[in-house]
Amino acid sequence: MSIVKCDQSISIDGFSAGPDQSEENPIGVGGMRLHEWMFATAAWARMQSLPPVPETPDSAVVDELANDPDVGAYVMGRNMFDKGRGEWDESWKGWWGPDPPYHAPVFVLTHYPREPVPMEGGTTFHFVTDGIESAVRQAREAAGAKDVQVAGGAHTIAQAINAGLLDQLYLHIAPVLLGSGERPLEKAGNPKLTPVSVIASPTVTHVKYRLEYPKT
Amino acid sequence: MSIVKCDQSISIDGFSAGPDQSEENPIGVGGMRLHEWMFATAAWARMQSLPPVPETPDSAVVDELANDPDVGAYVMGRNMFDKGRGEWDESWKGWWGPDPPYHAPVFVLTHYPREPVPMEGGTTFHFVTDGIESAVRQAREAAGAKDVQVAGGAHTIAQAINAGLLDQLYLHIAPVLLGSGERPLEKAGNPKLTPVSVIASPTVTHVKYRLEYPKT
Repeated sequence: MSIVKCDQSISIDGFSAGPDQSEENPIGVGGMRLHEWMFATAAWARMQSLPPVPETPDSAVVDELANDPDVGAYVMGRNMFDKGRGEWDESWKGWWGPDPPYHAPVFVLTHYPREPVPMEGGTTFHFVTDGIESAVRQAREAAGAKDVQVAGGAHTIAQAINAGLLDQLYLHIAPVLLGSGERPLEKAGNPKLTPVSVIASPTVTHVKYRLEYPKT
Repeated sequence: MSIVKCDQSISIDGFSAGPDQSEENPIGVGGMRLHEWMFATAAWARMQSLPPVPETPDSAVVDELANDPDVGAYVMGRNMFDKGRGEWDESWKGWWGPDPPYHAPVFVLTHYPREPVPMEGGTTFHFVTDGIESAVRQAREAAGAKDVQVAGGAHTIAQAINAGLLDQLYLHIAPVLLGSGERPLEKAGNPKLTPVSVIASPTVTHVKYRLEYPKT
């Protein structure tokens, strides 16, 4: 059965991005520290054509996530699409160049209506102005039998959980204290969470949670 | 070598206690949810003379912590000693009855000088008015070759990390969103953290971190 899922690197004090996000610091001051575990993997080295490094459990996690055949569509917050761009800019087509790494429809939450933007490699950015429930519904329709991935940022993830829409949350708990920034689990409501798998390494702890929403 | 250590149940949004702590809710509204994993263990059932339940990895963790032979002294915040008591009350001897579970010297941070309070079973409460560094130093002296355990609460743990005094932090990451309450990792500075062991179960994820403090 297809699910709505999310994976996210998070500090042990609960931040998925540092403070003061900008075009220079798209994930905020210090935010890159959350992803150091990933940059150290063999999978990352292969993707970036860097000198090889030894395979590790972390590398297997990166491989699994980067090549997930089950994802059929994405949902993304506006801040992730155009953070720091100020006013809406019709020429802006995201951070990822002509061939973004999504290779699937991406539904971007925004207040500004805009025609879909097709990119190379199968990615098309669609713009959704009527909220998270609509974005997830449209993504589910586009994904068909496949899963929907909520790509971020923090506020969009919190909205999806709070609306009872997220079925799986895969946290990569980095041994870092950021002290300030954006919290994807803030104002996220009160789902029932169950850890369903844990992969441990000396650099990060990967915990996959199943989310359920008690009927009220 | 003796170390200063702490173990703490924490929600995935970073709280070790819920909001609105009081005599009725000493760990705040919803705070007991952080400890449900422990109440479900065979170790807890034995300690409380409850009907036996199956042994689990969580139970082994509880056994290890409850019977840690390496702890020689404790440090505790005033709120943990007398939360909700309002003005200082010389007749108050903590929450734990005549034979508290510490069986060692306990150094309580407070602004109110008070003579030491010896209890049954080896616990003596000492009152420290000159801050976390003094409390940890006195506890280290009392512990001799053994470890010092920082018992809590959240603010005391953050102070100990921020002062570069804590060597090991053992988090029991509960699959719970509390949404508000007290955060032991808030304003805790920026130590270097390394996960040194992980024990996983369907109810909680136990991650032990080594803390180091880069020279500045």
